[in-house]
Parts: sequence; structure tokens; C-alpha cells
Amino acid sequence: MPQVTLSADGRQLTLQTDSTSLRFHALWLRDNAIDGATRDPGNGQRLITMADLPAETTLTQASLTDGTLMLTFGPDGHSARYDLGWLVANAYDKPQPRDAGRLPAQTSAWTSALNATVPTGAYPEVAQSDSARAAWLEHIRRYGFAKMTNLPVQSGNLFKIVDLFGYVRETNYGRHFEVRTEVNPTNLAYTGLGLQAHTDNPYRDPVPSLQVLSCLENSAEGGENMVVDGFACALRLKEINPEGFDLLCKYTARFEYAGSAGVKLQSRRPMIELAPDGTLQAVRFNSRSIAPLTDVPFDEMEAYYAAYRQLSEIIDDTDMEVTFKLEPGEAFIVDNTRVLHARKGYSGAGNRWLQGCYADKDGLLSTLAALESQQEAAA
Amino acid sequence: MPQVTLSADGRQLTLQTDSTSLRFHALWLRDNAIDGATRDPGNGQRLITMADLPAETTLTQASLTDGTLMLTFGPDGHSARYDLGWLVANAYDKPQPRDAGRLPAQTSAWTSALNATVPTGAYPEVAQSDSARAAWLEHIRRYGFAKMTNLPVQSGNLFKIVDLFGYVRETNYGRHFEVRTEVNPTNLAYTGLGLQAHTDNPYRDPVPSLQVLSCLENSAEGGENMVVDGFACALRLKEINPEGFDLLCKYTARFEYAGSAGVKLQSRRPMIELAPDGTLQAVRFNSRSIAPLTDVPFDEMEAYYAAYRQLSEIIDDTDMEVTFKLEPGEAFIVDNTRVLHARKGYSGAGNRWLQGCYADKDGLLSTLAALESQQEAAA
Repeated sequence: MPQVTLSADGRQLTLQTDSTSLRFHALWLRDNAIDGATRDPGNGQRLITMADLPAETTLTQASLTDGTLMLTFGPDGHSARYDLGWLVANAYDKPQPRDAGRLPAQTSAWTSALNATVPTGAYPEVAQSDSARAAWLEHIRRYGFAKMTNLPVQSGNLFKIVDLFGYVRETNYGRHFEVRTEVNPTNLAYTGLGLQAHTDNPYRDPVPSLQVLSCLENSAEGGENMVVDGFACALRLKEINPEGFDLLCKYTARFEYAGSAGVKLQSRRPMIELAPDGTLQAVRFNSRSIAPLTDVPFDEMEAYYAAYRQLSEIIDDTDMEVTFKLEPGEAFIVDNTRVLHARKGYSGAGNRWLQGCYADKDGLLSTLAALESQQEAAA
Repeated sequence: MPQVTLSADGRQLTLQTDSTSLRFHALWLRDNAIDGATRDPGNGQRLITMADLPAETTLTQASLTDGTLMLTFGPDGHSARYDLGWLVANAYDKPQPRDAGRLPAQTSAWTSALNATVPTGAYPEVAQSDSARAAWLEHIRRYGFAKMTNLPVQSGNLFKIVDLFGYVRETNYGRHFEVRTEVNPTNLAYTGLGLQAHTDNPYRDPVPSLQVLSCLENSAEGGENMVVDGFACALRLKEINPEGFDLLCKYTARFEYAGSAGVKLQSRRPMIELAPDGTLQAVRFNSRSIAPLTDVPFDEMEAYYAAYRQLSEIIDDTDMEVTFKLEPGEAFIVDNTRVLHARKGYSGAGNRWLQGCYADKDGLLSTLAALESQQEAAA
């Protein structure tokens, strides 16, 4: 039987269940009350600001009935109900790890072993079935990439993919861009050169957090695509050279692109970016657009370069990569804050024509979370 | 007379000018060579990767003539020229401050004193003159907001503003959204309620880094807009409560919006976000969409709330705000990673109709940098 007790000063509540004991502050409980005066019943947005919450908020009464906690607060006498399951799910009286270099929730690191089960969806199913769509989006949240097959082979089909979850991010490259050999390329992507695994547009802040590449023709020799898990690479670097890992997190690199008129994109971000709690947040890696490193102190520059070289070697290691050659009507999407993509050089008689566009993760994760809520509600 | 010397092992070069002595590593110099084999002469992108740079790179020869440094490297015998001015501008042998809570380069903090000289541009000038456009964009880079006057009073005129520098970021709210009173509002923005100063969509990751709000009607009573410099507020908090400032940087807050079907946006980011070197990077503050704080340890929660309350009080302090009532044909733009915006409640016989949209800073800063390069080249 769960039980609640209040501290003598009314500033804390302790919830004792069979398995655990969780403390909450009166102010936190008052701030998170769910009632029509605190939150809008329609859209769930909070109606009050901190100025409406007395600093000296206390608990004056607490009772627990059938999984519902009923609380009364002083000094204003406000009362509110809390679902016990909600309280346990939102408890903060727990260990809060802060070591650097942890995977975010709901992600798994991967290496070339994933070649055996490349996350893939078929467009007709994913477009028609909520569960197939949720499964495909879940792959992207977990692995940071997924393939899509069975698209109609037509220019602009990449927008059909973005329409499944969100919105295109337009840039100076257009709403979409043509990836094929050009005579005077504004970007090395528009040549037949092989490209080392990279994240796109690290010189852009905010960086586009998703990229879609869709294949319309691929009869040239070569031109395979590779994807590499930047988080797995960062963790491998941390294992073999923890100080080097720290250097790549601690100092900002600079990236730059000024390949066409009227454009001078610049950013200052670390190659490995951590959230304040040490969770891996983003990887930026692009040998074409990295600018001179000026934010690393002289005495650390050699060690920084050594770590940068090790990370580059890990990224180039075929043990880390998943490879596929796209057929017309196939595409892939990458989480551009995490997964690097590469291509082999191509040549010969045939043609290679891909179309690319950017989009953002907010819409993708929102669509997935909404589908998951819907599935839970139906279950 | 500038002079250069090489270290005995060839791994360092020292550049001695009248005023300073700057050291560079051989590897850094080789990596940043500007020649047709290292960088594409057309688009400036680097053609080599770390695998092409020998780890044991050394300098074997150095000579300085008329502001140009000519270097030869071992073991591969590569040689390259460096402009002395470029070297000094990109030097890293210098103090690299890392204290928390510094303004980014090219920004100035501000308070209500800025009411006397609100950064403003007139659309016809800004659209037609490069120098007027650069000046208006520079206001936004420096202060994080600017007004725009003399727009044609017509629906969609806010896109004219975005076209000056970049691209709209479409979201679940549309390419643009109507800010006026609705009967069943999916967002409290679509009511006549006053709104505390906030950044928009902190529940979105990446957050839209620019917002434009354009006025088509404003005959209601009230409805003034206020803007507040989030960086100035963060620095004031740091002054009065440095430990509290650290708590708001150190622990992630959570934000959430699920006000309409199919949407469940969630983020986990600190209210005050620092770059790894301690520079202020972003402020997120929104009493409507902050979710329960679960990433703050129990023992720090009261101190965290106290700091959150202080920051809220600073934000509400009229000494921090710039206020204006938009006329039809007027608009303003905010750097949504820094500047909070608010509105007074409105009511009465008249109407208030604004249109809003999001865009991103990458395009704005790129356009400004390109205009500045062009002005320098012409000077």
C-alpha cells in the first residue's frame, strides 16, 4: 500500500511505495498541478508564471485514495489531484548520471554488423499504415538512419518521404538539390569524386538535423553509399583515447562554406557536442568544410590534432560502416546530428542522379511520439 | 620587420612581428594550406582528409618575402604560400578565455535604455540598398532584434522580410500562422491574453532561431509588444546569484507541446545554454510550455527553483524591456535563441491581427557576412 507523509515544515512530501521512496518539493508539486486554473484544459499549456507561485509554498494536507493523491497548498489554499503513476514517472529523487559520452535515451550504437539488418521501410506500407510508419520512424530515432524502398521513380519523390513526418528545411541549396556531376561545381558533392563520411552543412547553425537522399538513376560504376554512426565512433575514440575525446568536446572547431555568390556560412561548434549532463548531442565532421582551428590553445593543438586524426581513422574503418548501392526508387534518410554519410567515387558509361533535401528532427520525433501515444491509448 | 624561425625538430614555426610573437604547428600549417591540391580553387572546399596528412609532418624550409610566407614541408616535400595577414588573423597562440557567461562576438547586451534608439529599418530602403540591408541585419546580429517599418499592409508581407536574407522554417503551425483571437485556441498565443516574455517553441529541437511578427491590424486596446534581451537577463542573474546561474546552465529543463492532434513536441535543453568555452549560446524561457523539471537532483531542486524565479523576475522587470505598439505595415524580428518577446493583453472594440513565421539565423548571418565581404572588397 503506497503511503504519503509531509515534512514538519510542509516543504516536502515523501511517497512510499512497496519498492521505493520518492521525495517531492511542495513548490514543484504546486508548479506542476494539472487543473483548469494552472493549465489550459484544452491545449495543456501552463496559465501561470513564476510570479503566481508564492516562494513560501507549503503543503498543508495530503491524502491518497485509489492511486490519486489529493494535495492542499499553503499559503493560498489551492488544491489539486495527482495521478500516482504520473508522479512516479516524473520523479526526480533518483540518481542523475553526468559522466561524459553517454548515448541518448532510445538510441543504440551500431557498427558494420548492422549490414545484416539494414533498417528499411517500403514506401507504400509506411505511407498507408500507422504502425509501419511508427516502426520506420522508430528505426531513425534508434539508429539515426533508415532506407526507404518502392518509391515512385520520379523527380521530387523525396518530398513524399518528408511529408510522412514533417517539413522541408529550405537553404541556399534550394528546397532540394540535384546530386550529379556538374561542369563548374559549387560543391564537391556535385562531382564524381568519392566523399569521406561526413555530416552535411556543419557550417550552418542550426545544422539541418535530417537529410534525405533519393536515387533516380545509378547505372554508373561505383557510387555506393556508406553510413557511419558518429556516436559509435565518438564512443570508440573515448575508449582508446579518453583525453582526446574530451578535447574534441571541449574546444570548438570552425566550419565554413563560401562556394557561391552571396553565401558565407560560418559556425563554431565542437566536433563532438555534449548536453550539459554529458549525453552525446551531436557530431560534426566534414573534411571539406572544416576551417582553420583557432579555438584550441597552442599547448593542446598537437593532442587535439591527434584525437581528430584518430576519430577520422575510426570513421574510415570499414568495420564501422553500413554500405548499400541505391537503386532508382530507393532513398535513405540520416539524422545529420549523428550519422555520417559517404559515397564511393563513380565513373564509367552510366549515370548517377540523386536528389537531396534537408528536414528537421523536431517534426519526426513529434510525429513518432504522437503515433506511440495513439498506439498506447488503443492498447 | 617580421621574422620567422623554425624549431629544431621542424614541428613549430615562430612568427615574430613588431608587436607579437606567434607560434604555429607544422601540421596545422600543412592542413590549412591554400593551393589547388589541398583546396578546390573554385569553391574553396578542402580536397584532402586527415589520412592524406602525414602525422610526422614537419617544416623543412621557411622564407618570408613582402608579406608572404613560403613553406616547404617534410616528409612529402609539399610547399605552399601563406599571406601574413591571414596567419595573424587565424593565430591560435593567444589567450583563450573559458569563464562561463560571456557574450558572443559582435553582440551587445541591452536594457530599456535601448527604447531611445530602437533598431529599425524601412522596408523600401532595406530591400533596395545593400548598405541599408547590411545595417539592418547587423542590428539583428548585435541586439538580437530589429523593427521593420513601411511594409505594404497585406497578408503575407512577412515573407518579404525573410526573402531579404534567407528561408522560412515551416512547422506544424504552417509556413506562417495567424496571431489573433480564436474560439478554440490550440495555443494561448491565439487568445487576447497577455503573454509573459518568452522564447518561442523551446519544445522544438532544433528551435527556430528567428521569428518574424508582422502587424496587419492593431486597433484593439492594449496588445503592445515587448522584447527582452535574454543574454542581458542571464548576465544579471549571474551577477546577483552566480551559483543559480550555474544551475540553470548545468541542468536541462524539459519543454513540451501537444496542443493539437498528431503533435507531441518535446525537448530537453538548459534554460541558459553555454558553448563549451562558456560563451552564451541560447536562452530558453517559456512558462506556458515548460514541462515538469525531472533532470535536477532532489538536493538542488530548491536552489534551481530559486534561480528560475530570479530569472523570471529579471525578465519581468520593466527596466529590461523595450516596448512598442506595432502599426499596420510594421513588423519585428527576434533572434529566438536570445531575445524574448511578450505582449500585453488586449480587448475592446478594435481588432488585433498579426502574422508570424519562423526562419533561421544561418541564412541571415551568411547574407550579412557576404555583404560585409563585398563592402570590404569595394573599399
